[in-house]
Amino acid sequence: MRCRRCKKPAVVEVRRHNAAFCDSCFQAYVHAQVRKAVDGLGMFSCDERILVAVSGGKDSLALWDILISQGYRVDGLYLGLGVGEYSKRSQRACEAFASERRVNLRVYDTAIEEGYDVPRAAKGPRTPCSVCGLAKRHLFNRLALEGGYDVVATGHNLDDEAAVLLGNVLRWETGYLARQKPVLQSTHPGLARKVKPLYRVAERETAAYAVLRDIDYVVQECPLAVGNTQIELKHALDAIEETSPGTKHAFLFGFLERAAKAFEGEDAVELHACSRCDMPTGGALELCAYCRMRDSLTGSRGPSAEEERL
Amino acid sequence: MRCRRCKKPAVVEVRRHNAAFCDSCFQAYVHAQVRKAVDGLGMFSCDERILVAVSGGKDSLALWDILISQGYRVDGLYLGLGVGEYSKRSQRACEAFASERRVNLRVYDTAIEEGYDVPRAAKGPRTPCSVCGLAKRHLFNRLALEGGYDVVATGHNLDDEAAVLLGNVLRWETGYLARQKPVLQSTHPGLARKVKPLYRVAERETAAYAVLRDIDYVVQECPLAVGNTQIELKHALDAIEETSPGTKHAFLFGFLERAAKAFEGEDAVELHACSRCDMPTGGALELCAYCRMRDSLTGSRGPSAEEERL
Repeated sequence: MRCRRCKKPAVVEVRRHNAAFCDSCFQAYVHAQVRKAVDGLGMFSCDERILVAVSGGKDSLALWDILISQGYRVDGLYLGLGVGEYSKRSQRACEAFASERRVNLRVYDTAIEEGYDVPRAAKGPRTPCSVCGLAKRHLFNRLALEGGYDVVATGHNLDDEAAVLLGNVLRWETGYLARQKPVLQSTHPGLARKVKPLYRVAERETAAYAVLRDIDYVVQECPLAVGNTQIELKHALDAIEETSPGTKHAFLFGFLERAAKAFEGEDAVELHACSRCDMPTGGALELCAYCRMRDSLTGSRGPSAEEERL
Repeated sequence: MRCRRCKKPAVVEVRRHNAAFCDSCFQAYVHAQVRKAVDGLGMFSCDERILVAVSGGKDSLALWDILISQGYRVDGLYLGLGVGEYSKRSQRACEAFASERRVNLRVYDTAIEEGYDVPRAAKGPRTPCSVCGLAKRHLFNRLALEGGYDVVATGHNLDDEAAVLLGNVLRWETGYLARQKPVLQSTHPGLARKVKPLYRVAERETAAYAVLRDIDYVVQECPLAVGNTQIELKHALDAIEETSPGTKHAFLFGFLERAAKAFEGEDAVELHACSRCDMPTGGALELCAYCRMRDSLTGSRGPSAEEERL
């Protein structure tokens, strides 16, 4: 097989585009997909400060690598969630990446800073993946705002987005469908802009990119996530993709281009400030879901707004 | 396990309802689901004439059995599509069912009446499943109107509907999503009402019902359909259902109850009468898709409306 662009021997095949590329043209292809995402959707500009959330896996480190080489002002954030050896290796991978490239990485350890870790938290009513998701949503946002960043970038790829979309569609979570976008603008001073610059790049393409770029990433999946719904949904989509190539791409892009508008406004919620952390939260309760979870884990309630007034 | 209703030993489990039933209570449960569909959505009334499309499989024969025992005025229609031994066995199963119960069955053989069969048709640009689907849509409608029936009933069960929904969602076929309803009212004098009274009953429940009722149905799937997209989608949903029981039910009913409204009107098309068969058809072409397919197979064009004027 020959590279579509330069006709040299190809090293990576991109079946859904019916194309193959040599090493350097493949890297150029991935960069072009990210540029199309960033510029096409106005994710951020060259003078804005970007916080990329890195896990030590292929996607987020590939994203960091791409944004650095495209000249963006980008720092990394690693959340230490205390998942034993897996977390330690992941942190080391992020630290090695940052020191080799002389870029800034912030490591934020929830056990030290917040008084809980995921394995302990998962002994409560929430699953490990639910605790982890809640912690990431809250902390990415809070740490970005505290650090003066304009935007949080995450490494979600096309396969991730398709699997999340499938989960939302299978339960017809119309509120989540309204929010499933590659760019979530800040609609409130307490909410950072969130972007997914890899949403046009398939999972095997981010893996190939990381390998070709010699990025030393952690291959292992989080051991607490084994068998979770998200992974099952990915397997289901993989099976369909096998017999109908291009399904994932058509599913995600068809949604974004034709169907997403049908759910516009379904996510409308009245936001108020959490009386503990001051971050915006919906629903009738005084505390946000994150503060409620952390309280139940650490036993420390801290003063509520009402208590402080007394 | 005990029957939820009468506490006798159970013979069938309905996991998504967290229930189990003895033979007679299970039959009553299935009948209740059909009654809920028919009465709840106003599918038809006792004095209307129903044409049930039967394939010889468990679903359509179970449906016919239920509608007969609920006292409806219902005749059967078997379409002979010429798929070798499979079609012959299927026809015999329908004929045996009808003669045992002394009910009317019309057998309509496309090779005799229309000049083509599916295996020959599938040598053209369409797949066997595409030819079969187009032929059924056209002929069920035409034969119901010609026979003076008020409504066409098909045996689509919950699993069928969930798989079709998944296919439409994966491609975001918004026009098809707008039409995916258990009742399609007649919006034109040339279109019969179409109903799916088994949409609340899962596939393994229609199979259990057919077995308990001693219905001699054809177990074999159509040999031409092996590996088709629909079957792959069913497998994918089965795999997800395995780890997340209730997914299919939540997917289909969530769509009908909350999401379908988002696609209302997306199926709006201007209809005109096909110049050959006089049935309503959309699109810019003079002939409907069925007449175009049949012409290409039989070589006979027949007079177009324009030619008849000359």
